[in-house]
Amino acid sequence: MADLNFVKEIADIDSDFTQWYTDVILKTRLVDYGPVKGTMVIRPYGYSIWEIIQAELNARFKATGHFNAYFPLLIPQSFLMREAEHVEGFAPECAMVTHVGKEPLAEPLVIRPTSETIICEMYSKWIQSWRDLPVKYNQWANVLRWEKTTRPFLRTSEFLWQEGHTVHATAEEAQAETIQMLGVYEEFCKTVLAMPVITGRKSEKEKFAGAAATYSIEAMMLDGKSLQAGTSHFLGENFAKAFDIKFLDKDNKLKYGNQSSWGVSTRLIGALIMVHGDGRGLKLPPRVAPYQVVIVPIATHKAGVTEAAREISAGLQKVGVRVYLDERDMSPGWKFNEWEMKGVPCRIEVGPRDLETGTVSVMRRDTLEKSPLAVKDVKKGIPSLLNKIQRSMYAKASAFMKSNIVKARTLKALGNAVNSKKFALSMWCGDPKCEAHIKETFQATSRNMPFDQTPIADRCVVCGKSAKFKIYFAKAY
Amino acid sequence: MADLNFVKEIADIDSDFTQWYTDVILKTRLVDYGPVKGTMVIRPYGYSIWEIIQAELNARFKATGHFNAYFPLLIPQSFLMREAEHVEGFAPECAMVTHVGKEPLAEPLVIRPTSETIICEMYSKWIQSWRDLPVKYNQWANVLRWEKTTRPFLRTSEFLWQEGHTVHATAEEAQAETIQMLGVYEEFCKTVLAMPVITGRKSEKEKFAGAAATYSIEAMMLDGKSLQAGTSHFLGENFAKAFDIKFLDKDNKLKYGNQSSWGVSTRLIGALIMVHGDGRGLKLPPRVAPYQVVIVPIATHKAGVTEAAREISAGLQKVGVRVYLDERDMSPGWKFNEWEMKGVPCRIEVGPRDLETGTVSVMRRDTLEKSPLAVKDVKKGIPSLLNKIQRSMYAKASAFMKSNIVKARTLKALGNAVNSKKFALSMWCGDPKCEAHIKETFQATSRNMPFDQTPIADRCVVCGKSAKFKIYFAKAY
Repeated sequence: MADLNFVKEIADIDSDFTQWYTDVILKTRLVDYGPVKGTMVIRPYGYSIWEIIQAELNARFKATGHFNAYFPLLIPQSFLMREAEHVEGFAPECAMVTHVGKEPLAEPLVIRPTSETIICEMYSKWIQSWRDLPVKYNQWANVLRWEKTTRPFLRTSEFLWQEGHTVHATAEEAQAETIQMLGVYEEFCKTVLAMPVITGRKSEKEKFAGAAATYSIEAMMLDGKSLQAGTSHFLGENFAKAFDIKFLDKDNKLKYGNQSSWGVSTRLIGALIMVHGDGRGLKLPPRVAPYQVVIVPIATHKAGVTEAAREISAGLQKVGVRVYLDERDMSPGWKFNEWEMKGVPCRIEVGPRDLETGTVSVMRRDTLEKSPLAVKDVKKGIPSLLNKIQRSMYAKASAFMKSNIVKARTLKALGNAVNSKKFALSMWCGDPKCEAHIKETFQATSRNMPFDQTPIADRCVVCGKSAKFKIYFAKAY
Repeated sequence: MADLNFVKEIADIDSDFTQWYTDVILKTRLVDYGPVKGTMVIRPYGYSIWEIIQAELNARFKATGHFNAYFPLLIPQSFLMREAEHVEGFAPECAMVTHVGKEPLAEPLVIRPTSETIICEMYSKWIQSWRDLPVKYNQWANVLRWEKTTRPFLRTSEFLWQEGHTVHATAEEAQAETIQMLGVYEEFCKTVLAMPVITGRKSEKEKFAGAAATYSIEAMMLDGKSLQAGTSHFLGENFAKAFDIKFLDKDNKLKYGNQSSWGVSTRLIGALIMVHGDGRGLKLPPRVAPYQVVIVPIATHKAGVTEAAREISAGLQKVGVRVYLDERDMSPGWKFNEWEMKGVPCRIEVGPRDLETGTVSVMRRDTLEKSPLAVKDVKKGIPSLLNKIQRSMYAKASAFMKSNIVKARTLKALGNAVNSKKFALSMWCGDPKCEAHIKETFQATSRNMPFDQTPIADRCVVCGKSAKFKIYFAKAY
């Protein structure tokens, strides 16, 4: 994963955030453009982050009683048609397989844009009795949605994700599952990605095609835009009716299953970059960093330097720290720049002068502070520093988000907020026309309605009629 | 993963091995048929096995210096055309994406049947200098090859696999990588799957489309058929030339990269079943078993039984054993049958009578032997028993394979061997016509040419001309 052709040249984060993002993801070799328009290649440094995300989420899914499974990539076109809202939402962006070699297929097949339909088809086969419930499965898969405007991680034709699909005996249970998994995402983002999120219910306009209700986690990027980082859907009986998922209940009555589905994707990597980055490039929270520590030996021609660096590296590995010992034949300055851009949370410099006093020099990527650490304290001090960095990065991101949410009681205030890189928290009557008006006027969309619905005003921010919901508006990715 | 509608009814393994296989994989809920012909749904019990395989292989790939990455699913049709042999081998079975929604695409896209072409396209962009080499990447992905005759795990349109793709400065290095990864597969099959394999080079006819040489691991199923369980290809400069992968070497000359690729798939699960199963169903080696131990409490209305069972379960989990405590409201006999069919390596029965003497009853799935074990010895005794079962299952499979390989010096002897559920080890002149003759006459194919080429005769087993190779023939999956 070492970069020999590394060049430190990225756009200014303040004046051109979009170009900064593109420069950073390409130059740190997280990702590259694929040959087909709108596709991406996830390179080892990016994929390592994804593997850590997978491991962390798998542990949480397992702890909440879910099992992983795998369902086919190709879905008969007719399946998609069965749920009216669902087909309307997804059909135009579906890649269609029509031939094998030169032979046409009898029925066109769709590459999954999401797997509700094919999974429901199987569930209808597997579920007969209340004893079969709940069914709580998850799958890690690639999905495909043809997009007009694409950006690596944020919006690509193909992306990687996990999709949970559950069936329950009652609406209450399915609803509880929906909210539980939203909570799992929230906790994961906070704990692992050091990323605060806003949780709540989506408006009817923004909900998942086919869901009874959609809940989302929304994160605030450094440019004040919102990024929908994950969704959890209460599907009710919508798909169960379309796919005939029925079970004989304890009371001997045939009932439809109640369902949930929920997912997060490689988009999370994009969020991570835009929540924590700075002018030098990536800033990775230790818990999700492929390398938590990089060790750079200085003046390796001096006796003892290489040996000391290797010993420190081995010691850190032994206590479970992900460490990269950079012994490449390049100048320390070059290495510093490279690993700073790559966002490694902590750098240890091992040099002859420090070694004379039994210390090494430790640099925190998040604050750029440098301080000495006794060699004998490294094995204890570094893991504790990594924890500190993790907490500190979350605190910083939280403070940033908090200070950029504006309670907007007038349309003008709302416009000012979303036009000055902030979220607006406003009251809304519930009419999609008012939502559409905000979108047309300010290019801002409704993000979600928080669970705490304590009103901040009586009237809809747009039409002035009686308000029903408290809701966030923001420009969004 | 518990099966409430479990029915113990599987075909006789000796008289109808094919039906036995189908019954076992469906009834143990490893897999189900997908809605599109030739596809499979991997259910949690099957997917758990795959996850263990992934973890074990990832550790080995990492230890040998490889990184995981992810390349796009869709490949421009023109890429496939660039390597003449490759396109001939794969084009007829490729699923073609021709439309998005109702809009036709400018160029049809192929769903990857394997990723050499798209990965080589990226490599040609990334590799410039000898300093960039070697590149050693692996990806876990789904691939699609349209097959006429399909069977879950063994041959399905879509399957899951890993594919390693490496580039090296010299042919020697690429060749060494090819052989090293074949060795990794061999060791993995032996250690984790308790499955002996035969390693060697494929004939020209049987090699990968586009490779300079293909090496395979072949396993012997209980019906004496061979199953190609993994392949490792030396690609030479074939793809490098087609995709222009060139680097400036230390001597300042532009040279083509030398490549390898290698893969194993969900087919391994099929092999596992057919190497170890018996009349009662699956027999899983402990290292790859989702549950290594099932605990069945007997007469749970008696005081202390449930408590003791739970304590034993918690104790085993603490020492890293994958254990399932079966507290379902069903008879012990039913549970015994179910878990035996599911192949759990070890069953612990916790009953009131045993508990009086401070023991539990332990059943080995591989030998069906039952013996008492002191409760206080469980935490030490069970892990040691699991190791014993693992070794013993490998020894049994090895003895079976050894005793079913026949040195066949005549065509008649070869025919007798492959028609009586054995592998034939024979001499061959190297002429594809002789290979074809064996296929036509006995429906047996060449498997591979072992590294130990000590001749067992001078003449080709078919034409009687001077022999060049020692080679295995067998019927195959």
